[in-house]
Amino acid sequence: MTFTPIVRDILSRYESDNPGTKANLARILAHGRLGGTGKMIILPVDQGFEHGPARSFAVNPDAYDPHYHYQLAIDAGLNAYAAPLGALEAGADTFAGQVPTILKVNSSNSWASGINQAVTGGVEDALRLGCAAIGFTIYPGADDVFDMMEEIREMSAEAKSVGIPTVIWSYPRGGKLSKEGELALDVGAYAAHMAALLGAHVIKVKLPSDHIAQKDAAKAYEGFDSSTQAMRVAHVVKSCFNGRRIVVFSGGASKDVDAVYQDARDIRDGGGNGSIIGRNTFQRPRHEALAMLDKLVRIYKGEE
Amino acid sequence: MTFTPIVRDILSRYESDNPGTKANLARILAHGRLGGTGKMIILPVDQGFEHGPARSFAVNPDAYDPHYHYQLAIDAGLNAYAAPLGALEAGADTFAGQVPTILKVNSSNSWASGINQAVTGGVEDALRLGCAAIGFTIYPGADDVFDMMEEIREMSAEAKSVGIPTVIWSYPRGGKLSKEGELALDVGAYAAHMAALLGAHVIKVKLPSDHIAQKDAAKAYEGFDSSTQAMRVAHVVKSCFNGRRIVVFSGGASKDVDAVYQDARDIRDGGGNGSIIGRNTFQRPRHEALAMLDKLVRIYKGEE
Amino acid sequence: MTFTPIVRDILSRYESDNPGTKANLARILAHGRLGGTGKMIILPVDQGFEHGPARSFAVNPDAYDPHYHYQLAIDAGLNAYAAPLGALEAGADTFAGQVPTILKVNSSNSWASGINQAVTGGVEDALRLGCAAIGFTIYPGADDVFDMMEEIREMSAEAKSVGIPTVIWSYPRGGKLSKEGELALDVGAYAAHMAALLGAHVIKVKLPSDHIAQKDAAKAYEGFDSSTQAMRVAHVVKSCFNGRRIVVFSGGASKDVDAVYQDARDIRDGGGNGSIIGRNTFQRPRHEALAMLDKLVRIYKGEE
Amino acid sequence: MTFTPIVRDILSRYESDNPGTKANLARILAHGRLGGTGKMIILPVDQGFEHGPARSFAVNPDAYDPHYHYQLAIDAGLNAYAAPLGALEAGADTFAGQVPTILKVNSSNSWASGINQAVTGGVEDALRLGCAAIGFTIYPGADDVFDMMEEIREMSAEAKSVGIPTVIWSYPRGGKLSKEGELALDVGAYAAHMAALLGAHVIKVKLPSDHIAQKDAAKAYEGFDSSTQAMRVAHVVKSCFNGRRIVVFSGGASKDVDAVYQDARDIRDGGGNGSIIGRNTFQRPRHEALAMLDKLVRIYKGEE
Amino acid sequence: MTFTPIVRDILSRYESDNPGTKANLARILAHGRLGGTGKMIILPVDQGFEHGPARSFAVNPDAYDPHYHYQLAIDAGLNAYAAPLGALEAGADTFAGQVPTILKVNSSNSWASGINQAVTGGVEDALRLGCAAIGFTIYPGADDVFDMMEEIREMSAEAKSVGIPTVIWSYPRGGKLSKEGELALDVGAYAAHMAALLGAHVIKVKLPSDHIAQKDAAKAYEGFDSSTQAMRVAHVVKSCFNGRRIVVFSGGASKDVDAVYQDARDIRDGGGNGSIIGRNTFQRPRHEALAMLDKLVRIYKGEE
Repeated sequence: MTFTPIVRDILSRYESDNPGTKANLARILAHGRLGGTGKMIILPVDQGFEHGPARSFAVNPDAYDPHYHYQLAIDAGLNAYAAPLGALEAGADTFAGQVPTILKVNSSNSWASGINQAVTGGVEDALRLGCAAIGFTIYPGADDVFDMMEEIREMSAEAKSVGIPTVIWSYPRGGKLSKEGELALDVGAYAAHMAALLGAHVIKVKLPSDHIAQKDAAKAYEGFDSSTQAMRVAHVVKSCFNGRRIVVFSGGASKDVDAVYQDARDIRDGGGNGSIIGRNTFQRPRHEALAMLDKLVRIYKGEE
Repeated sequence: MTFTPIVRDILSRYESDNPGTKANLARILAHGRLGGTGKMIILPVDQGFEHGPARSFAVNPDAYDPHYHYQLAIDAGLNAYAAPLGALEAGADTFAGQVPTILKVNSSNSWASGINQAVTGGVEDALRLGCAAIGFTIYPGADDVFDMMEEIREMSAEAKSVGIPTVIWSYPRGGKLSKEGELALDVGAYAAHMAALLGAHVIKVKLPSDHIAQKDAAKAYEGFDSSTQAMRVAHVVKSCFNGRRIVVFSGGASKDVDAVYQDARDIRDGGGNGSIIGRNTFQRPRHEALAMLDKLVRIYKGEE
Repeated sequence: MTFTPIVRDILSRYESDNPGTKANLARILAHGRLGGTGKMIILPVDQGFEHGPARSFAVNPDAYDPHYHYQLAIDAGLNAYAAPLGALEAGADTFAGQVPTILKVNSSNSWASGINQAVTGGVEDALRLGCAAIGFTIYPGADDVFDMMEEIREMSAEAKSVGIPTVIWSYPRGGKLSKEGELALDVGAYAAHMAALLGAHVIKVKLPSDHIAQKDAAKAYEGFDSSTQAMRVAHVVKSCFNGRRIVVFSGGASKDVDAVYQDARDIRDGGGNGSIIGRNTFQRPRHEALAMLDKLVRIYKGEE
Repeated sequence: MTFTPIVRDILSRYESDNPGTKANLARILAHGRLGGTGKMIILPVDQGFEHGPARSFAVNPDAYDPHYHYQLAIDAGLNAYAAPLGALEAGADTFAGQVPTILKVNSSNSWASGINQAVTGGVEDALRLGCAAIGFTIYPGADDVFDMMEEIREMSAEAKSVGIPTVIWSYPRGGKLSKEGELALDVGAYAAHMAALLGAHVIKVKLPSDHIAQKDAAKAYEGFDSSTQAMRVAHVVKSCFNGRRIVVFSGGASKDVDAVYQDARDIRDGGGNGSIIGRNTFQRPRHEALAMLDKLVRIYKGEE
Repeated sequence: MTFTPIVRDILSRYESDNPGTKANLARILAHGRLGGTGKMIILPVDQGFEHGPARSFAVNPDAYDPHYHYQLAIDAGLNAYAAPLGALEAGADTFAGQVPTILKVNSSNSWASGINQAVTGGVEDALRLGCAAIGFTIYPGADDVFDMMEEIREMSAEAKSVGIPTVIWSYPRGGKLSKEGELALDVGAYAAHMAALLGAHVIKVKLPSDHIAQKDAAKAYEGFDSSTQAMRVAHVVKSCFNGRRIVVFSGGASKDVDAVYQDARDIRDGGGNGSIIGRNTFQRPRHEALAMLDKLVRIYKGEE
C-alpha cells in the first residue's frame, strides 16, 4: 500500500478508533489509482434496490451482473465498491482482496410508503464478506429519522469494536423540508454535521446549491460567500468537525460528463475527499465509463 | 484531587450507588477551578445537533473544531465537557484524562417532526471513551415522554452497574404545555422532580420564571414567595429530594454577560450547584468566553 | 417475625409461588404493628410523579425529603413503603432492612397525553435495593391497557423467578368508562379480577361506589345487596379468587380523618386486607399523621 | 425489626455493598433473640453431606427430617439456618419468612478423594428459596484451594449484584498443614484474613489453639500474648480487617455443654460476633438443645 | 490534573488503546506528588494474602485496617494503591475518587502447593469499585504459567474494551529456575518482555542482580556492561519495547531506608518509571513511612 503524509494525517484524526478500524480506512485510502492522495472515488451500486433493475441496468445490460461492477471498480482503479448484501455476496469470492468493499447495510425502494430504509445487512456479514466498511443511509428531516439514527448507532458501535468503519449517506428528506430545501447549503451542511456527530468515519452528502432554506439559519449565513460550488463544498467539509472527517459527494442522476468533471474539480478545490459516483458510471458503456473515471482520477490528482 | 467536607457530604447523599459511580461523580466535583466547592460549571456542546453547525459556530468559526471545546473547558478550569458521540470521539484521545467528559446519549435536531430525541450513544461508548457520566434529555409533557423515560431507565441501570452516573436534562415541552408554561416555576420544579425520581445523579433544568402554569398547582403555591430568581432556584432544588441531588441550571440562548452573571449569583444564592453553559461561551470570541467563565467561577466561589 | 395461623393461611393460597416470593410476602405480612394479623397498611409515595412536588409536599414541606417517608413508615409501624426508583435509592442504604419496600416500577404524570405510564424501574433494581415487591399500575379500559398488561406480564414473570412478588394497582380509566363508572362496583370488581388473573400477589383498587356502570352486568347484580361499603369490599375481595389474593384499598385524595377511619372499618369488616394510604398521611403534619395511623392500626386490629 | 446503633455500625462497614445486600445482612443481624445485639447464632446442618445421615442423625432420629432443623432454629430464636440445597428445598415453603436461611452452595463428603468440595447450589437457587445469604467453604492449604477461590469469586460477584451476601467457611486443611497446624492461631488468623480478602461478608472459622504452626510467622508472634481463648478470638477478629467484617466461630465436634458455654463466653469477650453451632445442637435431644441454646443466647447478651 | 509533555509522550506510546484506557493510565500518571513527572510510586498491599496478616501487619498493628493503607497512599501523595478485592471493598466508598486504585485480581498464599495464583477479582469488580487498573501476577518458569497467561489474556481483553488498563507483576519462579536465577538480569529482562508481549500497560518486576542465569543467553550478554544497578534497570526498560511501556520495580522485603533510597535513585537513573513499594512502607511506623516516601518522591523528582 501507498502511505503518504496526507494519509497518515487523515488517519490521525480518527483518534478514538482502534487500529483495526483505521487499517480498514487505510485500505480504502491506499487502494487504487488515488491511493495515497487522500482523495477517493467510490463506486456505489444500490440503484437496483432504489429504482429496480430495468431502470438501473437496461441501458447497459452487462450491469445486470454483479461481477460487472466489481470488475469496473478494479479496472478503473477506484478506491472501493459499495453495494447491498446480495450483490456483494455474488462476487465476494471471485474478487476477494482485489478491491475494498463497503456493505450497504440499509436500503429503500421505489414502493416504500414511508421515508425510511430497511436494514438489509449486518456487521457480521461485513466480516464474513471481507468488507472494509459498512454504509448506512439516514434521512434527516424524515419522521423516522430517529429510528434510523438508533439503528446506525447500534451497528456502528458493534462495527467499531471489530475494526469496521462506518460510511453514512446523509440525505435530508421529508418532514418540513421542501424539495429545493433538500439541496440547500445550510441543510446539506447540517445533514453532514449530524452524520459526523453520529460517529461516521466517512460522510457522504449531495453537492449543495446556493440556497439557504432554514429561516432560523439565514442570519448565520449573512455575508457568507457561497457563490461557487467549491466554496459550498468547503463549508460542508468545515461542518464535518473542521475537516476532521472524510467527506465525499454524490454525483446525483446521470448527466453530461463535463458537468461530472466540473463537480469533481469543485469537490477537489473545496477540500472534499472525493466522489461516490454510481449511475454516471454503470449507466454508460464500459469503455465510456472507464474513460470518464480515468479523467476523474486525473482531476483528483490535480492533473486536469 | 480536592476533597472537602462539602464534596464528601454531596457524595454521601448518593447512598445506593456503588463506589465506581461515586468516584466518577467525585471526578466531576473535584475537577477544575471549582473543584471541592460543591459547585460546578459544565460546558455542553450539542448545539450542532440541535441547531446545525452554522447557527452554532459561524459566529466563532474556531468552534467548528471539536478540539476547540475540549481546550476551552480545560483552559477555563471547568468541571466537565458534555457532547454527543462523534464530537467526543474526535478529541477523546488527545485530551484523555484532562477533563471529565459527559457523553450526551440522545439528541434532537431542528427538523424533528415529533418532540423526542434519537438515542445516539451508549454506555459501552462512555466506557471506551473514558467518560465520567452519560447525559440524556427527557421532554416531560411530550407525547413520547414515556418512551424517553423508558430509554433512560434501561441505560441508567446499565450505567449504574458499571460505575457511570447519569445526568438528566429535563425540559418540559409539548402536549398541554404552553410556551410560557414551559418556563413556569411549578412546571420546572415538577420536571426536575421527575428527573430525580428517574434516578438521575445530576439534574439539569432551565431557570424558571415567576409564573405558575398548572391550574391544579395554583393552590399549593398560594402565599409562596417566588419573587426573586434565587427563591425560585431554591424551590427547584428543594423539589429534587430536598437538595439530595445535584441540580444545575442552563443559561439558555446567548445573552448579555451581566445577565449571565446575575443568573449565576441567583443559582448560587438559591443553593443550586452550578451552570451548564454552552452558547454563551462558544458563541463568543475565546478571550471573551474565558473572561466570562473566569468571572462565573469567581461568582460561584463567592468572590464576586 | 410474628407468624400466626392467619399469615400461614394467606401464604398457603399462593400455592404456585416459590419460597422466595412467599418469604417476601411474609416479610410484608409479618412486619410492623399489624405483623401477623393478615392486615396491612402500606405507605405509597408516588404523588411526586403523579401530581408534582409542590401539590404533593408543599402543605408539609418536610415531606420533600425521601427520608421523611421511610421514617414515617417505620415510626408508624406500617407494613411497607412504596415509591419510585429515585425516591427509594435516596434512602435505601440508610434504612436497609428497617421496613419492607415496594419499588413502583411504572409511573405517570399530570401532563401525560395518553392514559398510560412509563416503566421507570426494573426487577434488577428491586434486587439491588433490597425491595420486598414491585408495584405496577394498569388502567383497565384505556387504549393502552394491553401494552401495560404485557409489560407487567414480563416483569412479573421475571420477578417471580427471583422471589419478588407483584402488587398491581388496578385503576379503571379511559375508553368507554365514565368518571362515575370508574368507581362503580361492577367496574372495580372487574378491575380487581383482571389484576388477579394477571398473577398479582397483592391487588390494590379504589373503594367502589354503589353504582353499577356496565349495562351488560346489570342483570348479574340484580338483587345483590351492595348498600354498605363493607358489602362492596366483600364483593371485590370475592372477585379476587374468592379471597385467595390479598386486596388492599386506596384512600384517594386527602379527607377528613373520620372518613378515613370509617373506610378502614369497612375494609376490615368486608374482609379486605388493608389500606394503601398516601396523601392522607404525608400531607398532614407528622404528629397528626402518626396519630391517625395509630388509630388505623388499632381499627385493623379490631381494637376500635 | 430491631435496629440498634451496633447493627447500623456493623452495616456501615460494608461500604461497597448495595442496599439489597445490606438489607439481607440486616435480616440476619435483626432476627431472633440476639436481633440487634450485633451477635448471632447460626444453625448449620451440612453434616449429612459431610458424614452421612446415620453418623449425623441416628443419635436423635427426629433430625433426619429437614423440618426439624428449621423448627429448632425458629424455636431457639437463632439468627439463621444454613443447609445445602435439598435440605432447604424440603422446608423452604413451610417456613418461608420465619427464619433467615443460608444456602450452603458447596459440600464435601466422607468419601472425597481430594480436599475439595462440589458446588451444589447457586445464586439463583438462593433467590428462588428466599435465602438471606449463600455459604461457601474454602480449604486454604489444599491443592485445590485456588479452584475453590475462583468458584466463590464468581458466585460472590453474582450474589452481590442481586443483593445476596456471602458467608465463607475458611478451614485450613491439606498440603503442608499438619493436623495440629490446622487449628494453630497463626493459621486460623491467616485463613480468616483470606476469606476477608475474597470479599466475604461473614467469615466462619474454628476456634484456634495457642499453637503457632508456621515457622515464618513465629517472629511476628514473639511477645504476643495468646494465652486465653478470648485473646485468640480477638486476634482473629483483628485479622479480618481490624473488625470490619463479621466473624463467627464453629463449635467443632459435639462436646460437653460447659465447654460450649465457655467457648461462647470467649468468643463474646474476644469481640467475635457469635457461633455457628451444628452437631452440638441437633445431636442432642431437642429439649436439651433448646436449653443449651437458651443459655448461649443469654451468654451473648451478657446475661451469663 | 497535571498534564505535561512527558505524560503526553508516555500515553502516546499506548497507541492501540481506546481513550478510556488511556484516561485511566493518565489518572495514575497525573495523580499525587509525582503527577506529571512520568514517575510513579504505587502502594501495594497484598501481603496479607501472600504471607498472612500477622507477618504483614503485627509490626505496625494499625495496618490491619484497610483504611490505613488508603490513607497512607493519599497522605504520602502516591500515584495509586493496589490491593485484592476485599481490601478495596472495605474502603472504596469512603475514599471514592481520592486516589487511583488497582484491583489485584489474582493472589497466592504461603501454603500454595503449586506455583500459581487464584483469580480473586474481575473486571466487573474493577468497574463497580471505580478502579483505575487491574493487576495480575504471572510466574514465568512455573509449570502453570500458561494457565496464568491465558487467564490474564482473557481478563485484559475484557478490561481493554471497557477502558481499564492492566498491570502485570512478572515474577520468574519455579521450573528450571534456581533461586539465584530468579533475580538474574537476563531472567528479569525476559520476564518483563513477556509481560509486555502479553499486552500489559504497566510492568512490575524485581530489581535484577548482575548474574546471568541462562546458559543460552550468556553469549548475548558478552561484553554487556551491567555492573551498576542503573545499567540493569536500563536493560529491563529497553526489554519492554525499548521503553514504550511503563516499568516499575518492587522493593522486596523490608530493608534499610538507605538501600530503599539507593534503589530509587538507580531506577530513576536507569530510566525506570518508579517503585511499587509495600512492606517497606506499611511495616514501618506511619511517620517513618511518610518520611521515607517523602524522600522517595523527592528522589524521583530529581531533588535528591
